[in-house]
Amino acid sequence: MNVDGVPYRPIWPEADGTGVGIIDQTKLPHRFETVRLTSLTDAAHAIRAMLVRGAPLIGATVAYGMWLALRADASDAALTEAAETLVATRPTAVNLRWAVDDLRATVGPLPEAERAAAAFRRAGEICEADVATNAAIGRHGLEVFRRIHAAKRDGGPLRVLTHCNAGWLATVDWGTALAPVYMAHDAGIPVEVWVDETRPRNQGAALTAWELGQHGVPSRVIVDNAGGLLMARGEVDVCITGTDRTTANGDVCNKIGTYLKALAARDNGVPFYVALPGPTIDWNLHDGAEIPIEARAGREVSHVPGMTDDGGLTEVRVTPADAEVANYGFDVTPARLVTGLITERGVCEASVQGLAGLYPDMAGDSAA
Amino acid sequence: MNVDGVPYRPIWPEADGTGVGIIDQTKLPHRFETVRLTSLTDAAHAIRAMLVRGAPLIGATVAYGMWLALRADASDAALTEAAETLVATRPTAVNLRWAVDDLRATVGPLPEAERAAAAFRRAGEICEADVATNAAIGRHGLEVFRRIHAAKRDGGPLRVLTHCNAGWLATVDWGTALAPVYMAHDAGIPVEVWVDETRPRNQGAALTAWELGQHGVPSRVIVDNAGGLLMARGEVDVCITGTDRTTANGDVCNKIGTYLKALAARDNGVPFYVALPGPTIDWNLHDGAEIPIEARAGREVSHVPGMTDDGGLTEVRVTPADAEVANYGFDVTPARLVTGLITERGVCEASVQGLAGLYPDMAGDSAA
Repeated sequence: MNVDGVPYRPIWPEADGTGVGIIDQTKLPHRFETVRLTSLTDAAHAIRAMLVRGAPLIGATVAYGMWLALRADASDAALTEAAETLVATRPTAVNLRWAVDDLRATVGPLPEAERAAAAFRRAGEICEADVATNAAIGRHGLEVFRRIHAAKRDGGPLRVLTHCNAGWLATVDWGTALAPVYMAHDAGIPVEVWVDETRPRNQGAALTAWELGQHGVPSRVIVDNAGGLLMARGEVDVCITGTDRTTANGDVCNKIGTYLKALAARDNGVPFYVALPGPTIDWNLHDGAEIPIEARAGREVSHVPGMTDDGGLTEVRVTPADAEVANYGFDVTPARLVTGLITERGVCEASVQGLAGLYPDMAGDSAA
Repeated sequence: MNVDGVPYRPIWPEADGTGVGIIDQTKLPHRFETVRLTSLTDAAHAIRAMLVRGAPLIGATVAYGMWLALRADASDAALTEAAETLVATRPTAVNLRWAVDDLRATVGPLPEAERAAAAFRRAGEICEADVATNAAIGRHGLEVFRRIHAAKRDGGPLRVLTHCNAGWLATVDWGTALAPVYMAHDAGIPVEVWVDETRPRNQGAALTAWELGQHGVPSRVIVDNAGGLLMARGEVDVCITGTDRTTANGDVCNKIGTYLKALAARDNGVPFYVALPGPTIDWNLHDGAEIPIEARAGREVSHVPGMTDDGGLTEVRVTPADAEVANYGFDVTPARLVTGLITERGVCEASVQGLAGLYPDMAGDSAA
């Protein structure tokens, strides 16, 4: 997608072969800064300090991080050390371990002299596979959007509400929930996006608003409290979010607050869609009650980062100094509130049957 | 209620007769500062700059502001000027105009020499009437809380979720939604409060958390997104909020986001109560669809005020510099989602019949 008119991805191999470029997402939306990663240490830092975030983008950064490590030292010992260093950066990120294991399996059997080049190629393949997956989600979602827009009686723009950031900044390109938004916009369908701020980490206000604005998609930031009113007033045509994990029955674990928007959508007859790549379906969990919910640092709630009027980046405390705080990262939206799941293989009902229809090759175990 | 062990109200006549004391609520929760109002100008500034807020407290400040004006000049011209000055401070505050009209009617017929003393007495009466109303709400709410707590099988504390600030800082004492919380706490019922941050103005994180903490009521601040998860996990026994306006059929207009919590309460079988003084019932509106919703300044969404690590009070921008923002102050919770209305006259169903049962003297017109 575009940044100030120039096409960007959030990660790219530098053309001169010196390393890997990324966008420092900790500075967004206030400063657009790119960083060149030239070593395993750089890559590990980028993941740990969240210069990159989002499962697909973390996976891509891990893959290129393995290349950077092997470029410096392709020995078995270095391979093991690189794997351990990268896995330790964010222990709960599932995609991270998957990418490490994939790279080890790819380069492990090779002679040392071939390992770095093979890692570089494999990293590129992982990136392109993510782009293809998201583009497919976008095409299927575009048909959903096209149908909803065509059914509007007033001929006005398609007004989409989204929560958190499931855009191109979280993936290698397109995003998941935002892929249909970009495709609709690029196809000439007038799209306007209500962007939930998404407290406590403000991924909506900071990242979704920024990436939509840079690509020229009209959007308005709202507080997380506002979506219910907007839906009751008929100002939302469709909701779409991403998901971190979907269970075999179609329950959706996503950023805290998603469930509240799904309730409001149901109460007002607004369709609520969830966009996801197949690998985020957890076939081992039957339903959302089995998903453990991560409790996170209270400082994310008590302190808000941003830019002061004089251009400095800082944090302000919004609670009393001695206030107790509770901070949960995710909630579960029951399948009954989800109109449909938009995957790279098509759109299905959020149910065991719906998912099994699209993923007969995967769903076997869970049906047992 | 207590501040650091000392009983306080948010407004009081100074014992030495020199003026009226208030708490500067713009500094909370970071600094506890009191301000002495000694003139009409002081009182108007306190309302305009939101050192005081909340309809009952604004009404009390207006009443004392009239006294301060008349103390300096009790002429008819001064009375008119004081009334106009105070009404202009916050044009949309209904209670403000009510208090101005009440004071004019009280002192207008009197000789100039008696006007200031009469205004002072009337201001005191208005304050005590508010305290009595809220105490009655608290007693009725306490019975509701007592019953819910007694029905808990685990014998644990009563876990209350509230949104925005409807506590003593918004009234002359007790608050509305928090009156039952304070009474339950003081009566020895173990109460724990989930405090919604309440974006965009953070009245929960700043004011509710502060006043509960100062009085010793255990509480935890959560982002507005978290209540749905907590209710789904069975961690909320009852929700209670205030309201700015209730229509004749029991629809509740309150701070933006209240509706989302009511939806989650209904979806999880959690009782949802609204506390209100009778005068906030708008008998002229049949239902919530008729309530206009105030659109407010976008800066409340794009900028967050707070305290930096070095103790300064500032604001940080959380959105892109050129982001569009929409900011609505209130939403409407339909009566069907409200378990009961807690008023100074008792608890009733949120319906025409329920309200008419408690307010037969008021409901006549709307039933026509």
